[in-house]
Amino acid sequence: MSKIKAAIVGYGNIGRFVLEALQETADFEIAGVVRRSVANNPAELASIKVVTDIHELGKIDVAILCTPTREVEKHAEILLSEGINTVDSFDIHTGIADLRSRLNAIAQKHNSVAIISAGWDPGSDSIIRTLLEAAAPKGITYTNFGPGMSMGHTVCVKSKAGVKNALSMTIPLGTGIHRRMVYVELEDGYSLNDVTRAIKEDPYFANDETHVLQVSSVDDIKDMGHGVNMVRKGVSGKTQNQRFEFNMSINNPALTAQILVGAARASMRQKAGAYTMIEIPVIDLLDGNREELIRHLV
Amino acid sequence: MSKIKAAIVGYGNIGRFVLEALQETADFEIAGVVRRSVANNPAELASIKVVTDIHELGKIDVAILCTPTREVEKHAEILLSEGINTVDSFDIHTGIADLRSRLNAIAQKHNSVAIISAGWDPGSDSIIRTLLEAAAPKGITYTNFGPGMSMGHTVCVKSKAGVKNALSMTIPLGTGIHRRMVYVELEDGYSLNDVTRAIKEDPYFANDETHVLQVSSVDDIKDMGHGVNMVRKGVSGKTQNQRFEFNMSINNPALTAQILVGAARASMRQKAGAYTMIEIPVIDLLDGNREELIRHLV
Repeated sequence: MSKIKAAIVGYGNIGRFVLEALQETADFEIAGVVRRSVANNPAELASIKVVTDIHELGKIDVAILCTPTREVEKHAEILLSEGINTVDSFDIHTGIADLRSRLNAIAQKHNSVAIISAGWDPGSDSIIRTLLEAAAPKGITYTNFGPGMSMGHTVCVKSKAGVKNALSMTIPLGTGIHRRMVYVELEDGYSLNDVTRAIKEDPYFANDETHVLQVSSVDDIKDMGHGVNMVRKGVSGKTQNQRFEFNMSINNPALTAQILVGAARASMRQKAGAYTMIEIPVIDLLDGNREELIRHLV
Repeated sequence: MSKIKAAIVGYGNIGRFVLEALQETADFEIAGVVRRSVANNPAELASIKVVTDIHELGKIDVAILCTPTREVEKHAEILLSEGINTVDSFDIHTGIADLRSRLNAIAQKHNSVAIISAGWDPGSDSIIRTLLEAAAPKGITYTNFGPGMSMGHTVCVKSKAGVKNALSMTIPLGTGIHRRMVYVELEDGYSLNDVTRAIKEDPYFANDETHVLQVSSVDDIKDMGHGVNMVRKGVSGKTQNQRFEFNMSINNPALTAQILVGAARASMRQKAGAYTMIEIPVIDLLDGNREELIRHLV
């Protein structure tokens, strides 16, 4: 079997962990990393091909998009239209269905596959939410996040004018309600009030209780651990009080990266089109002989 | 959209709860129930067609097999070869891959779909086990069952000569080790020693610490609640100590029945062949508009 040729597009937090996850696989070949500049590469890229244009990497099967969420679509559009599969961890929940619909048209036209929102939430959590709804169709699922750093929210804060560095922490208040604790280092000449307003108006924060605090060093308080507590109490058939709970305590970018790599593998096994994680069989995320996986896991 | 015409084959514990689950759906039509005899039907079947031969029910899309596990294959073979989809909750873990392989050949030949081992374990738990392996490929998953009644083990005990009634309770000892507490009512003229030996030699029990106790009334101690505690600590990429936990506390046959109904729905959306639960997209288990489900669940 020939290996899956994967490119890492973007090399921030997620990109670094995707590189590590790919290095631990037996079925991938790391074609290279695409960055805005090939200068100042960190040590772990010494033996990796680093380019600014993905076409310099030769034939690619799948591009793992590790850019900020809001740059995902433009990269995916180009790559899918060139017949290259893409996976991403696009994390604006309200935009997922529309992104899938737009990328689906492109992917089907150019015989490529996109698996979108393939992190842990959206992503692996979405699979569990769907499964629990199937297990007890009537009821409510609460997904409680944290305490932990939200990468999507942090990137969002960093994009605001006047923000030098930022950390957005998610604090679970139960029944799916969260507080956002945002810690910012400011550029000279910007006011905390203006930055706070810009943050609170952003769709990432608009619906949650949000507190913005100025700190002298974000790096000194940063921890990439995160958690989820998902709870469903529901009805199977006519039987009430069926209870389900999923907990995880994880390194956030490491898990996102691992799910992305599984999705990259799964992209090779789907028909042309764009998919969310709940639309692909979970077995497709895994390497190995299908019969053996079934013996081991079912 | 025309409704999915479903037949319930077998009307024991699972069959009763499948009927309830089907009655709560909007997309199924209950074609009828197949029993060994049409005499002595319980009250809830008054308005349901009850037959001894499935062909009396007219055109069927999917048969939900609620027979004992060891009778699943013979029913599935016949129905699949007539172009009728089947779903079952076959629960002998070591036999699943082979059953899938045999039914796959029949289903592909006759353009039908089988979804096998579609209960909660094997079944929904299998999906979570697979997902956790994708999330942290290195590590160990422990599935701890109970305390609760194992239906498969109980049916197995009831099949032994001299057993009038039985209850097999599963007691979790941690790290996937279980004790089986078996309570039996004996027929006259049978010895507890002989029955105990027959139970302990059965593959269902051979690998677990098993205690067989004689009681005067099994019904007096029966409770259909059950539980699962699944734990995985593993490695995502090169990041150690990723922790995952899934818990549920459920009515056992009610959940099995609900998963079977989801699988029956999903069977209408797969290509011909036989599948385990980890091979079908979880979204296929649900009724409703796909775009809306994605908006709601991803």
